[in-house]
Amino acid sequence: MTELTPVMTASEIEHFLDTQFSEVHVDGRVFSVIDVSPAKTTLRLDPIARHLRPGGTVSGPTLFALADVCAYLVILAHIGPMKHTVTTNLNINFMHKPKPGPLNCVSTLLKLGKRLAVVNCDILDENKTIVAQATATYSIPSK
Amino acid sequence: MTELTPVMTASEIEHFLDTQFSEVHVDGRVFSVIDVSPAKTTLRLDPIARHLRPGGTVSGPTLFALADVCAYLVILAHIGPMKHTVTTNLNINFMHKPKPGPLNCVSTLLKLGKRLAVVNCDILDENKTIVAQATATYSIPSK
Amino acid sequence: MTELTPVMTASEIEHFLDTQFSEVHVDGRVFSVIDVSPAKTTLRLDPIARHLRPGGTVSGPTLFALADVCAYLVILAHIGPMKHTVTTNLNINFMHKPKPGPLNCVSTLLKLGKRLAVVNCDILDENKTIVAQATATYSIPSK
Amino acid sequence: MTELTPVMTASEIEHFLDTQFSEVHVDGRVFSVIDVSPAKTTLRLDPIARHLRPGGTVSGPTLFALADVCAYLVILAHIGPMKHTVTTNLNINFMHKPKPGPLNCVSTLLKLGKRLAVVNCDILDENKTIVAQATATYSIPSK
Repeated sequence: MTELTPVMTASEIEHFLDTQFSEVHVDGRVFSVIDVSPAKTTLRLDPIARHLRPGGTVSGPTLFALADVCAYLVILAHIGPMKHTVTTNLNINFMHKPKPGPLNCVSTLLKLGKRLAVVNCDILDENKTIVAQATATYSIPSK
Repeated sequence: MTELTPVMTASEIEHFLDTQFSEVHVDGRVFSVIDVSPAKTTLRLDPIARHLRPGGTVSGPTLFALADVCAYLVILAHIGPMKHTVTTNLNINFMHKPKPGPLNCVSTLLKLGKRLAVVNCDILDENKTIVAQATATYSIPSK
Repeated sequence: MTELTPVMTASEIEHFLDTQFSEVHVDGRVFSVIDVSPAKTTLRLDPIARHLRPGGTVSGPTLFALADVCAYLVILAHIGPMKHTVTTNLNINFMHKPKPGPLNCVSTLLKLGKRLAVVNCDILDENKTIVAQATATYSIPSK
Repeated sequence: MTELTPVMTASEIEHFLDTQFSEVHVDGRVFSVIDVSPAKTTLRLDPIARHLRPGGTVSGPTLFALADVCAYLVILAHIGPMKHTVTTNLNINFMHKPKPGPLNCVSTLLKLGKRLAVVNCDILDENKTIVAQATATYSIPSK
């Protein structure tokens, strides 16, 4: 995968989110694109009250959403804003309960084919512990 | 798995949600327990605007949450209100985009061990089409 | 999925295996197609010594192979002998250690699209206990 | 996971395979432990004819077995020879068809708990392309 080169910058992806996928901001601007580099994208989540569980952790659906959005964005960063790319499968392992604070998801393209992309996602807390890990498959629409 | 017998009724589970896991009602009472039977639980989702995607479908994180809550409840229905049962792995396949309307999740216990439970979840739309399917593993705390 | 109709019979599938995919018989005729019906195919495995583990169970790779072959066959049963259909993802849960004896895999089409198929596989022992369960995604070649 | 330290060396693991899990050598000595380091183990497969598919690739069940054995070994390398550690879930993505030649699997501990371990496996060909990726969960027996 060494030859992969992004075709969108972090700010172009932020603009795409704002104009084409604004429902991701339903809870305010909790997601921020931190970095786009060859085969990788990092997305940060700053959780708000509705993402937390009593006892003090970030909810499973919130971690799922973070992985799913970040995986989608690493694909778009490399193929352009093909909005209708869709998740077909996502497998997520919950390893440690994250504390209620910012989380970074690092998504890496494992495969970028014409029809399918496979992405690995590591969700890390502020101590760089991997609290959850996901792999996901996306179907890329025909041009 | 023929010998499995629920130890909580649908209304006891609703009561558990209201008193012990009320964050599930953050968006209002969108989840309702429809049925509890041996090895099975059915949970209904009545989506509201924030669960939808433009173009008219229910979002992936919403389907994930429906499967995850329903799988958790089928376990509790059979072991009692052991709140600290946690998801360790969830694999979800998105087969068809559901229309924006009520969805039923049917969760079936594939295994109920002392330490681990494995659950299958079928998410069906009003035409009984399986729009998404998940399997999940939960860790059951020691007594 | 009610409208799905097989386009190959069990004996046509057996013939396909013998002539096009004979490596499945590397250990002798351990796999037999038991049934083909709308959206379903049942494949039987009669394990031999090399499929067993000391202590008396069938090995994980053998259960994987049973699920993978059976899922492939339920797709071909419904689209015809498109040999180059390939597994892109397989998620398997091991619930109970099977005794060393015959196992049946029942594969059910959850989705049969033009490009992707999703299949559920239940592996049952002679007491009808589900010892393992898998879901798999296959990529279907363009015609 | 920085604090993880192996408690077995590569040659101790090879000895464990030879004496306690010799069925892994049913096809001859196709698996070799290449490296054991903190949180990681590398296992090499030298495929023989029965692992190949016509057209020239390594079969899916062979890749599954490589990931499963390597994940099992990285756990044992860090907890000692607890033979009855068992796979409960394995999710594998097949990205590229490997050519018929040696493959390396690199397994990394994502979590090593008292009851559960989660492992990531990357299977690489001789060009360091990731041909398949797996994540697996293992249940660790009580001492």
